[in-house]
Amino acid sequence: MTSFASDNYSGVHPEILAALAAANEGHQPSYGGDVYTSRLQDAVREVFGPPARVYPVFNGTGANVVALSAACDRWASVICSSSAHIHVDECGAPEKVAGIKLLPVPAEHGKLTVDAIRREARGFDDEHRAQPQVVSLTQSTELGTVYTPDEIGTIAEFAHAHGMRVHVDGARLANAAAHLRVPLRAFTTDVGVDILSFGGTKNGALLGEAVVVLNPELDRGMAYLRKSAMQLASKMRFVSAQFLALFEGDLWLRNASHANDMAARLHERVRDRVEVSHPVQANAVFARVPEAALAELHSRFRFYDWDESVGEVRWMTSFDTTPEDVDQFAEAVRAALA
Amino acid sequence: MTSFASDNYSGVHPEILAALAAANEGHQPSYGGDVYTSRLQDAVREVFGPPARVYPVFNGTGANVVALSAACDRWASVICSSSAHIHVDECGAPEKVAGIKLLPVPAEHGKLTVDAIRREARGFDDEHRAQPQVVSLTQSTELGTVYTPDEIGTIAEFAHAHGMRVHVDGARLANAAAHLRVPLRAFTTDVGVDILSFGGTKNGALLGEAVVVLNPELDRGMAYLRKSAMQLASKMRFVSAQFLALFEGDLWLRNASHANDMAARLHERVRDRVEVSHPVQANAVFARVPEAALAELHSRFRFYDWDESVGEVRWMTSFDTTPEDVDQFAEAVRAALA
Amino acid sequence: MTSFASDNYSGVHPEILAALAAANEGHQPSYGGDVYTSRLQDAVREVFGPPARVYPVFNGTGANVVALSAACDRWASVICSSSAHIHVDECGAPEKVAGIKLLPVPAEHGKLTVDAIRREARGFDDEHRAQPQVVSLTQSTELGTVYTPDEIGTIAEFAHAHGMRVHVDGARLANAAAHLRVPLRAFTTDVGVDILSFGGTKNGALLGEAVVVLNPELDRGMAYLRKSAMQLASKMRFVSAQFLALFEGDLWLRNASHANDMAARLHERVRDRVEVSHPVQANAVFARVPEAALAELHSRFRFYDWDESVGEVRWMTSFDTTPEDVDQFAEAVRAALA
Amino acid sequence: MTSFASDNYSGVHPEILAALAAANEGHQPSYGGDVYTSRLQDAVREVFGPPARVYPVFNGTGANVVALSAACDRWASVICSSSAHIHVDECGAPEKVAGIKLLPVPAEHGKLTVDAIRREARGFDDEHRAQPQVVSLTQSTELGTVYTPDEIGTIAEFAHAHGMRVHVDGARLANAAAHLRVPLRAFTTDVGVDILSFGGTKNGALLGEAVVVLNPELDRGMAYLRKSAMQLASKMRFVSAQFLALFEGDLWLRNASHANDMAARLHERVRDRVEVSHPVQANAVFARVPEAALAELHSRFRFYDWDESVGEVRWMTSFDTTPEDVDQFAEAVRAALA
Repeated sequence: MTSFASDNYSGVHPEILAALAAANEGHQPSYGGDVYTSRLQDAVREVFGPPARVYPVFNGTGANVVALSAACDRWASVICSSSAHIHVDECGAPEKVAGIKLLPVPAEHGKLTVDAIRREARGFDDEHRAQPQVVSLTQSTELGTVYTPDEIGTIAEFAHAHGMRVHVDGARLANAAAHLRVPLRAFTTDVGVDILSFGGTKNGALLGEAVVVLNPELDRGMAYLRKSAMQLASKMRFVSAQFLALFEGDLWLRNASHANDMAARLHERVRDRVEVSHPVQANAVFARVPEAALAELHSRFRFYDWDESVGEVRWMTSFDTTPEDVDQFAEAVRAALA
Repeated sequence: MTSFASDNYSGVHPEILAALAAANEGHQPSYGGDVYTSRLQDAVREVFGPPARVYPVFNGTGANVVALSAACDRWASVICSSSAHIHVDECGAPEKVAGIKLLPVPAEHGKLTVDAIRREARGFDDEHRAQPQVVSLTQSTELGTVYTPDEIGTIAEFAHAHGMRVHVDGARLANAAAHLRVPLRAFTTDVGVDILSFGGTKNGALLGEAVVVLNPELDRGMAYLRKSAMQLASKMRFVSAQFLALFEGDLWLRNASHANDMAARLHERVRDRVEVSHPVQANAVFARVPEAALAELHSRFRFYDWDESVGEVRWMTSFDTTPEDVDQFAEAVRAALA
Repeated sequence: MTSFASDNYSGVHPEILAALAAANEGHQPSYGGDVYTSRLQDAVREVFGPPARVYPVFNGTGANVVALSAACDRWASVICSSSAHIHVDECGAPEKVAGIKLLPVPAEHGKLTVDAIRREARGFDDEHRAQPQVVSLTQSTELGTVYTPDEIGTIAEFAHAHGMRVHVDGARLANAAAHLRVPLRAFTTDVGVDILSFGGTKNGALLGEAVVVLNPELDRGMAYLRKSAMQLASKMRFVSAQFLALFEGDLWLRNASHANDMAARLHERVRDRVEVSHPVQANAVFARVPEAALAELHSRFRFYDWDESVGEVRWMTSFDTTPEDVDQFAEAVRAALA
Repeated sequence: MTSFASDNYSGVHPEILAALAAANEGHQPSYGGDVYTSRLQDAVREVFGPPARVYPVFNGTGANVVALSAACDRWASVICSSSAHIHVDECGAPEKVAGIKLLPVPAEHGKLTVDAIRREARGFDDEHRAQPQVVSLTQSTELGTVYTPDEIGTIAEFAHAHGMRVHVDGARLANAAAHLRVPLRAFTTDVGVDILSFGGTKNGALLGEAVVVLNPELDRGMAYLRKSAMQLASKMRFVSAQFLALFEGDLWLRNASHANDMAARLHERVRDRVEVSHPVQANAVFARVPEAALAELHSRFRFYDWDESVGEVRWMTSFDTTPEDVDQFAEAVRAALA
C-alpha cells in the first residue's frame, strides 16, 4: 500500500531496528537504570544544553500529559491553538488524567501568536478562573507549518512575563529543525521553552517519545508523574536505544529532511492544480480537492479528509516515502483533477 | 551481568525480535487498523474463547488502569490483596488516573480468599462508601504463587453474587498456565473472569501488554478508555506482532515454562539452606537470608530486597535464565551461607 | 450599600429565614432522611412531573458537576456556550473533578443554537475524540437572556438525535420562568431536558441548589456522585426547607418576577443613554458605558465590569432590589453620562 | 424523636440561628468579600495564632479534600487510620476528586501512633510508590477518643522528620478541646499541625466547616483549590457568621462540653451493664450489646450499628442532648439488658 495518510503508517527505519537488536544483549536494569538510558541522558544534554533532562515515554499523548502535569498546579489551565493535538486528538487525556483545563484560541495555519494567546491570558488571581499557567505550542504544527525561533521567543517572553511556562509538543520537532536548518536548541532552549517532547515514532522509531525538561524548576516530580501517568517502560533500554540511534548520528535529521523534501516535491507537482491551504514547511500538504476527484483518489490511496465541509485533505510524507511514490501520487492527483 | 532481579531485566526473545523485523514491511494503518492487530484478535479468540476482545497496550500499569476503568463506575472501589501491584507499585495510578479507591486486604502468599474479600465486600447501597465493584487478583501473584482454577472460580462466584466483577492482573499469566498445565482459558474465561491483562514484557517481549475483555458488558468504552489513558500505540502493529509471535505458536508457554523451571531448580538447590517464604510455583523464589550473607550476595548479583525488616529477598528467573546461571547462583548462595 | 453587582450580594428572603427557623425542631435523620427532604421530593414531582427526582446540593458549581457526571461516561465531552458558567467561572471544576472536556462554541447573547452546537457535535465513534455526550445550556443565560421552550426543544431534539443528553444550568431558572410566563416544566421536562439544576441561592435562599433528574436513566449513580463530589449535606433538612419555602407557595416566582421587573425598570430608564448589549429578559442589564462615566459610577455603586476592552458592564437586580434603588441608580447613570 | 444516632441529627443552636438572622442585613460582597468573613479571619487568628488563615467551606468531606489537596503533590499518598472518615465515609472523594492515594494503618481506639504510621512511611524516593506526604489524624477520633497534645506533637515530629505534613480532620475538634481543657492551639498550632478543619455542623451550626491553614507554605493555592473543589459559597457571610457566633464567645466550647458531658453521663449510667469498646472521651459511647437487647432498643431509639459482626453500637450525644434524654435512654438500655 502506498500511503499519504500519516507518518505513523510507516514502519521502523532499518538503523533503528538494528539498534534494537544491538541493545538486546544480556540483562539490564529496568526502569531506566540501563546503560542506554544513561547514554541518552548525555546525548540529550549535548543536543539541548547542559540543564536538559530526558524522560523517555511511550507515546505523544503520554509525553504531553506528563509534561503539562509537570508545569501545572492543580488549578491550572493551558492555552493552546484550537487545532492543537492535545485539544482535538487526545480523547480528553489532559482533562481526564491531569484535570487540566484547555483554553483553545484561534491560530492561523496552526500557529499561536501573542495576540491570540492574550485572549485567554487573563483572569490571573481570580479564583473563579482556572489559572493560565502554560502556553502549549506544537512544532512543527498539526497543519505542517513551522514557528521561527523568533516567533517562539516572542511567545515565551510574553508567557514568562505573565508567569506562564512554555510547552512544546514536539511530535515532529525534527521536521521543524529540518525546515529551519538550525540546531534543535535554537528554537527551544535558547528562546525560553521550559519543557518539550521530542517525537521518535513519527521520525522512524518503532515507538517512543522523549520528554525533555529544559527548565529545572519543572523537574521535581517528573519521575512520579511519568510513572503515575503509566508511561514508565520497564525495558526502557529499548526505548532509549531508538533515541540513541536517532541522536548519536544525524538520523533524526536525515529522516525529517527527507520527509520534508517529499512534501515539498508533492507540493511542487500539484500546486498549480489544487488550492493549498497552509504553507508547506514540514512534511504535510493540506489541499482542497473537489468531491469527484476526491472519491477517485480515495479509491487508490490512503490519506485523511481533514475538513470534509470544505473538501480539505491532508497528504503526509514520511522518512520512507520515495520520490517515485510522490510522483505517482502527484500524477494521480493531476489526473483526477483533469 | 547475571541477574536474578526481575524478569524485566531480560532482553527480547529472538523469535519476537524476528517478528518485529518481519512486521516492518511497508505502510500499515495506524492505531490498530493493521493486519497484525487483526490477526491478533483472531488468535486471542482462539485462546480465550469467542467473546474475547483484545486491546494491546504499552505496559502493565496501563493495562490494569484501563481494565479497571472499564469495570468501574465513577463511584467504585476495588478489592485487592495488600501485596497487589496495583496497590503497591503503580504510584497511585488507579487513584490518580481513574479515581478508583483500592481496598487492600491481607492475603497469605499473595492470594486472595473469599474470607479476605468479605472484609471489604460490604456497605453496598451506602452512599458514604465507594462501592466495591471489582475484585482484582494477580495471577501468578506478586509472591510467585498461583491460584488454581477452582480458587479463582470460587472468588468469581462470590464476586458475581455480590454484583462485583473479577479482574486479573496477568503480567505473568503465562507462568501460571505453565505451572497449572492447563489452557489459559481454564482459569480465566471458564471460571468467570470478566477482564484480564496478558503480560508480554515479562514473557520475552520488547514491550507490550494485552487487555482482554471476556465479559462483553465491559467492552463498550474500551477504545476511548485506552486512548484517554494514553495507552494507544500509533504503530500498533509492532505491539501486536509480538503477541502473535507468542500466541501463534507456543512461545508464550515455552518462555514461561522455562522461567518456572529455573525457579524450581534454584529452589531445589537452596531449600536446605534458606527459609523459603512462599510456595515456589511460578518464576520467583522468596527467601530469608541472614544479613552477612546478603551483603556478600549483593556484591556479586542483582536481586531485590523484598522486606528488609526480616531479611527477605526475591530471586526471579526469566525466559533467558540458563541452568548454568542458576547453578552458579545457587552455589554462591550456599557459599555465602556456609 | 446599594449594589447592582450580583443577585448573590443579597441576603435571605424573610420567608426562607422563617422556614429555616421552623425546620429547627428536634432531631431529624441526616443526609436527606428527614421529613423536609421527603416533602421536597413531592414538591419537585409536582413542579417537574412524576419522574423527577431531586438531589439538594450546596452550590451551583457542585450542582453542575454532579449533573454532568451523571450524564457523562468517562470519555465524554460537553458542548456549551463560550460564555457558560461551567466554562468560565468554575475554576475548571468539571475538568478537575469529573475529567470532563468542555467544548465551548460561540453563542450570540449567550444562547446556543443547533448551528453552533453542530460545530462540535462530530467525531462520534472516533476514539481520538472525547465523545460529545451532553449539550449544556444555561437558562436564563449568563447574559440575562432567555431561551423559549421551542428553542430548547429544538436543541434537545438535535442532541437526542445524536445520542447526546441535555443539561440545563438553572442557577436562574426561576427568572426564565418569570420571563416566559409558563410553568417550569414547559421549558424543561416537556421539551426534552434530561437533567437540570434549580438555583436557590440567587432566588432568595441562604444557600442551596437542587439537581433535578428528569430522565430516569441518569439517576443510577446520583447518590454516590453527589457524595463523592462533596455535595451531600448532613443537616440536609435546612437545604430542603429553603426549597420547600420556594416551591410550596409561589415565592420562587415572586422573587424572580420582582428581580426581572427591576431589571426591566432599569433598562427602561437608561436605554436612551447607553448601548445595551443584550436583550433584557431576566434580571440583568448589560451596557456599554464610556470610561469617565464608568469611574464615577464605580465610585458610588457596586457592579461588575464585564468586558473591560469594550467598556461593557453588568447591572444585576435581585429579589430585594427596590424601585427606589433602581431609580436612584438610573439617575446616577444618566447624570454620569450627561 | 429522641436520637443518639449522630450529632448531625441535631438542629441549629439558637444563638447561631440568631446570628444568621443578624447577618441578613442588606447587600454584602459575595465569595468572602463580606465583613463577616473578614471578622472571622481575625477571630481565627486569635484562636490559632497569627499565621492562621481560614477558608470557610460547606462540609467535612469538602474540608478534608481541600486541605489534603493543599498539602499533596500530584504523586502523594496520605497515611491515615483504617477508621478515618476520609477512608471509610467519603465515598472515595479524596481519590476521585484529588487523586490522592490513602494508606490506612491499624489504629487502636482510632488513634494513630508513630509505630503504625511507620508501616507506610517508607519508599521515599521510589518512583513506583505514591509518595507519603501527609499524616492525617482525626481529633476527636471517629471512635470518640482524643489525642493528647503530646501524642500529636510526637506524630508531627515524626512526620516532619520524614518530610510529611500533618493534617487534622477536626469535624469534632471542639469536643477534643473540651475534653483536654486546653486551648485549641495547644494541640494544633503549638505542636506542629500544618492544616486542619474545624467542624461547625456537629458543633451546633446549620452547616459549615472551616479549613484553617497553619503552615503558610500550604496557603498558596487554597483559594483555587476551594473553588475547584466546589466548596466556595457565594453568600459566604452566612457560613462565616455561624463561626463568628461560635468563636467570638465561648459557644463552641459550651456546645462541645455539654455534648461530652452527656456522653460521660450515659457512660456512667450503663458501664456496669455493657462492654464499652473505647475510652469515652468526647461525645460518643461505643458498646457491645447482645442481639435481643439491640432489637428492643432499635425499636424505640435511633442509633447506629457500628460493627454488626460483634454487636457493637455507637451512641452519640450532641449540644442539644438533655440529661433527661440520657437518663431515659440509659434506663432503656438497662431494661433491655436486664
